[in-house]
Amino acid sequence: MKIKRWMVITAVVLAMVVAGGAFIGLNFGSQPLAVSDKQRAAMSPDAVRLLDTMNSLVVPDFVVRRIVNEDRLKAEREAFATAERAVEDELIGRFRLTLTSDVIDGVPVTVVTPPSVAPDRRGKIAINVHGGGFFLGTARDRVGLLLAHELGIPVYSIDYTLAPEAKYPIAIQECLAVYRELVDRFGADNIVGVASSAGGNLLTATVLAAKAAGLPMIAGLGLFTPVTDLSGIGDSVVSNDGRDGLVANLRVDVPARFYAGDEPLDSAGVSPVYATYAADFPPTVLTTGTRDLNLSDIVRLTWRLDDAGVDTKLLVSEGMWHGFHWEPDLPEAVQTRAAAVRFLQARLTSP
Amino acid sequence: MKIKRWMVITAVVLAMVVAGGAFIGLNFGSQPLAVSDKQRAAMSPDAVRLLDTMNSLVVPDFVVRRIVNEDRLKAEREAFATAERAVEDELIGRFRLTLTSDVIDGVPVTVVTPPSVAPDRRGKIAINVHGGGFFLGTARDRVGLLLAHELGIPVYSIDYTLAPEAKYPIAIQECLAVYRELVDRFGADNIVGVASSAGGNLLTATVLAAKAAGLPMIAGLGLFTPVTDLSGIGDSVVSNDGRDGLVANLRVDVPARFYAGDEPLDSAGVSPVYATYAADFPPTVLTTGTRDLNLSDIVRLTWRLDDAGVDTKLLVSEGMWHGFHWEPDLPEAVQTRAAAVRFLQARLTSP
Repeated sequence: MKIKRWMVITAVVLAMVVAGGAFIGLNFGSQPLAVSDKQRAAMSPDAVRLLDTMNSLVVPDFVVRRIVNEDRLKAEREAFATAERAVEDELIGRFRLTLTSDVIDGVPVTVVTPPSVAPDRRGKIAINVHGGGFFLGTARDRVGLLLAHELGIPVYSIDYTLAPEAKYPIAIQECLAVYRELVDRFGADNIVGVASSAGGNLLTATVLAAKAAGLPMIAGLGLFTPVTDLSGIGDSVVSNDGRDGLVANLRVDVPARFYAGDEPLDSAGVSPVYATYAADFPPTVLTTGTRDLNLSDIVRLTWRLDDAGVDTKLLVSEGMWHGFHWEPDLPEAVQTRAAAVRFLQARLTSP
Repeated sequence: MKIKRWMVITAVVLAMVVAGGAFIGLNFGSQPLAVSDKQRAAMSPDAVRLLDTMNSLVVPDFVVRRIVNEDRLKAEREAFATAERAVEDELIGRFRLTLTSDVIDGVPVTVVTPPSVAPDRRGKIAINVHGGGFFLGTARDRVGLLLAHELGIPVYSIDYTLAPEAKYPIAIQECLAVYRELVDRFGADNIVGVASSAGGNLLTATVLAAKAAGLPMIAGLGLFTPVTDLSGIGDSVVSNDGRDGLVANLRVDVPARFYAGDEPLDSAGVSPVYATYAADFPPTVLTTGTRDLNLSDIVRLTWRLDDAGVDTKLLVSEGMWHGFHWEPDLPEAVQTRAAAVRFLQARLTSP
């Protein structure tokens, strides 16, 4: 067989693809985050250790478009839930939490109850909307477990239908149904809402929907590294891409596409940073970190609320990444949850 | 003449030095800040225009050590004051401000008075400590002028002795003398303090010194992109180097060296982020931006205050750089000053 030029080219290209595949590994490919001594020095040793093991997924956009499909998302969802179960079980044991399954207006809810509730907190509850990029996570969400213990009140964690099965606005409608029923049952003044990442998007949208429906506003919101803008703009979307475990093209763009459906990504419905707020929106504490890909999402929403006269508190943690608050014992996570809990408890106990 | 090898080498090296000099220009050398469309989209058009004209000074460390000397700092100080005079005069005219020179306990102070003071603000004043890396700036500081108008009260702007003539703690002692006298004259509850950049460092240290001296705490502090850590650590010192007009080696390290003298850069005296705070420290609003080289300085000080039980508010502006608040009409600057003014006025008028 005569070796033709196209054969050589094809062989080289194939070798590059195979080598590239091996290089990027099974998990799409990743590279360690750059952390210098000047950056380490301002963080806790635990945080440094975590950052040193954290990778930034490296996947070219054209690969993302081909390999990410609904089957892969579902597999990732199952792997995530399995990995989380061990952490959840440990927290449930450590804090002697009781978990019960409920269905509220057709929506499954996991109620997380601490072993005792202080007298001045009786009859008060939290609603939790878990994170996971709209397409993964469960109502056993470790943030809900941690906050049931740290707030010292029952947490109603909503098992909303995930994308891509449920497109906008299905999850919001489900959360709104639960909000309506719990406000009826406990009174809006006795409820705070907490949420992480994509859940922060859904909870903000839910409260806006509740207001549009004429429902009373709950006593406070805790939005932990919320995703507020699916349109992909903002300083940190560029500057923190590759500095956070979360990367823009795979972890933000894809979930956005699966969740938003035909809704424009810059509409107020899927991107609450573009919504209109009034002063009666609940007092809101927002958390983020200097490495968070969504830092800009969060500071921009904070300004929207602040300019509307809403009582806000922005907590930015040094060197912290997207979703860092869910680490049970990381000092920076403990610190930010404690500050958020102080904010929320003050709003729950005021007359 | 026979051409020897060392002559060729010398000529080549000289040519490289000259070419390099031309490349880096008279102003040490600079490169435009990288600003992408995704980042532009989340900022005001005015901010985009400013960022597009902003450069990051590029000076190798070994050059910095050789070229920066006291003579150069003094020349830079004079050029800065001359350039600022036109802006200051415009603001004085626009807001019909009256400037008078005073000397308080031996310290020169410029008193900036608005044309009228609302009845509920009579007898209330602000202390201003200007920025400028410890080595430049004057008490005519445009931030003091803007805040005299926006707070609607007289501003006592301190003309502290600059570094390198005055090393730590001379400027703090001067500010403390003014603090003591003004507290005597107006009462601590009728005073707020405002400061920019290096001035934020000095004002924080002054309030700590006032507390150590048994003086009463004033009603509130507004720290605008304060420098709180001269030791050079922190996430943003790395991640925002080259993204801000302020660069770490020339604009931070050099002033620190000229100001701190023999004081260790991580001592609480020159780096207030390492000081100990108590709950009676004045309520404090702190401002920064996602591009600020000192973002980490500011979030770290905010946590120190917050954890001590101090009433804090952190304002982080999208895409904004070190010292952006001093732009008179930039929408983001107007917004952040307005939020700081709301915070300070609420603390001034509470019983």
